Amino acid sequence: MGAISEDDLISRFFAPIAGSGALGLKDDAACLTPPPGQDLILTKDALVAGVHFFPDDPPEAIARKALRVNVSDLAAKGADPLGFLLALALPTGDEADWIERFAQGLGEDAARWGIPLLGGDTVKTPGPAMVSVTALGTAPMGRMVARTGVRAGDLIFVSGTIGDAALGLQARLAPQRFSGLPEEARAHLLARYLDPQPRLALAHALRAHASGGMDVSDGLVGDLTKMLKASGVSADIRLQDAPLSDAARHSVAMEAALFETAMTGGDDYELLVAVSPQKAAALQAAARAAGVPLTLIGEAVAGTGPPRFTGADGGQIVFARGSFSHF
Amino acid sequence: MGAISEDDLISRFFAPIAGSGALGLKDDAACLTPPPGQDLILTKDALVAGVHFFPDDPPEAIARKALRVNVSDLAAKGADPLGFLLALALPTGDEADWIERFAQGLGEDAARWGIPLLGGDTVKTPGPAMVSVTALGTAPMGRMVARTGVRAGDLIFVSGTIGDAALGLQARLAPQRFSGLPEEARAHLLARYLDPQPRLALAHALRAHASGGMDVSDGLVGDLTKMLKASGVSADIRLQDAPLSDAARHSVAMEAALFETAMTGGDDYELLVAVSPQKAAALQAAARAAGVPLTLIGEAVAGTGPPRFTGADGGQIVFARGSFSHF
Repeated sequence: MGAISEDDLISRFFAPIAGSGALGLKDDAACLTPPPGQDLILTKDALVAGVHFFPDDPPEAIARKALRVNVSDLAAKGADPLGFLLALALPTGDEADWIERFAQGLGEDAARWGIPLLGGDTVKTPGPAMVSVTALGTAPMGRMVARTGVRAGDLIFVSGTIGDAALGLQARLAPQRFSGLPEEARAHLLARYLDPQPRLALAHALRAHASGGMDVSDGLVGDLTKMLKASGVSADIRLQDAPLSDAARHSVAMEAALFETAMTGGDDYELLVAVSPQKAAALQAAARAAGVPLTLIGEAVAGTGPPRFTGADGGQIVFARGSFSHF
Repeated sequence: MGAISEDDLISRFFAPIAGSGALGLKDDAACLTPPPGQDLILTKDALVAGVHFFPDDPPEAIARKALRVNVSDLAAKGADPLGFLLALALPTGDEADWIERFAQGLGEDAARWGIPLLGGDTVKTPGPAMVSVTALGTAPMGRMVARTGVRAGDLIFVSGTIGDAALGLQARLAPQRFSGLPEEARAHLLARYLDPQPRLALAHALRAHASGGMDVSDGLVGDLTKMLKASGVSADIRLQDAPLSDAARHSVAMEAALFETAMTGGDDYELLVAVSPQKAAALQAAARAAGVPLTLIGEAVAGTGPPRFTGADGGQIVFARGSFSHF
């Protein structure tokens, strides 16, 4: 960091991207008047260099990812973004150039998702960089989409495509496994890992129609298992229906073991949605209007056991490892 | 961390201490209905092992400090606590025992300050432990005490005593400098560093009477300079009036250089308060009723230069280093 003080850092790089409640980042705290009739939806995700991103990722991309994993949580809860706070721990010696690029990426992304910077803290660390974002959103009172709301009989949908980011991570860690993949397909997988695309466009459709939902951050298999357990139901899930991109299909065709990577790897930031059969058509229409693909992958059923996953031959698939685990 | 999963960690240690808006920590997000007619006050402070606390500090104390530095910010803004979110990054290999003690300390302190745990994130890190807390508070609409509110003519008060924590830190780093200090005095300084006491009891008095305020986290001299700069005023400050504990007086009597440590060191978590002369008596009465000592140390004056600090002989004191800086 050298010569730059925390105050300089804030006034040069972060104050220009701050929202009005941030009071120019000149105070110890932000102040905002919550919109009346709304619940506050709060989420907090932390990312550590070497665990959740590569230390040499572009700083703009690190900023985007830190913000977007939180925006994804808001989307899954059917919430509208209200603002966010940032804690940034940086290794001593990090350069002003890095911070400027980080702040630039953060500011552009905050504008894109309509979520202003409200405040935060910058500290030095003798360890790896860490970014912790607390995001605030709003939803009409009592209308947050809960992880616990899934009922037996609900249809289970997932947005977009699954597994691209986990395959993208593998393509960075073990490029030789993907050497047979066309360049465009590899670029798609790498971009899906580096730059998550939160499905904020689905938030209103979810809160209008869904009985339960969560975002897929730790792998489809593990996250679905968590949501069903929290709701006290089980499910029959047809993994052959899980939506794969062309690049993911190509990868799995090259190496069958990558199917498990796709189904259990993390960083999808797609949405898992449970909806009663009566409301499914309305949800699907709203998703189409929002331009987000939704794919039916199974049904919730009564019971408290883990979901039953079946493959193309109708046989049950049991995974050795359900999801990316932080511990 | 060994065998414990993130889900186990949450359900065993953190769910039992969570507030009602936390939804049992079973969801991706917390949900709460903000009290009508109130502004939300938001603050976020991050602590890194080896920078803001010692890695071998008791886990209960680390938890308390992480929470209290945020409660202190709420107090300085005249806010009532509403809840907090926690991000905890732990080195691989940290034991369940450590986490249990951390959660225990956190839960007891959350109850003490009336600030429930709402949610958060736990991740592993290859580096030092890091704790980031985002605290939410409320204040009647438009009544937050701002750092920018100081006006020329305001009287400047500070709560409690100044410098104990900075001296306590020195007593840990260089115990031989404090070898002449009675054991009780050394214990006082060490405790003030380890266990900050946020002045939440002053919050209502501040929002009723103060024109500006902030908490002293980075040293009296530096933080006062920041507050005055943010308010566009200067001040005459009589440092001989800065309140010192007996232990701090004893330390300074042993080694005069420790006066600068006391005035510029961090971690006081006392409150700096600016109040118009007309309201000073009411503020002092409210502070007495709250049981918190307030000491007059100077007056804000017109001008944009740094505050003028004078010592016992009336001469000006210029500090080489205004405050603890994180960078």
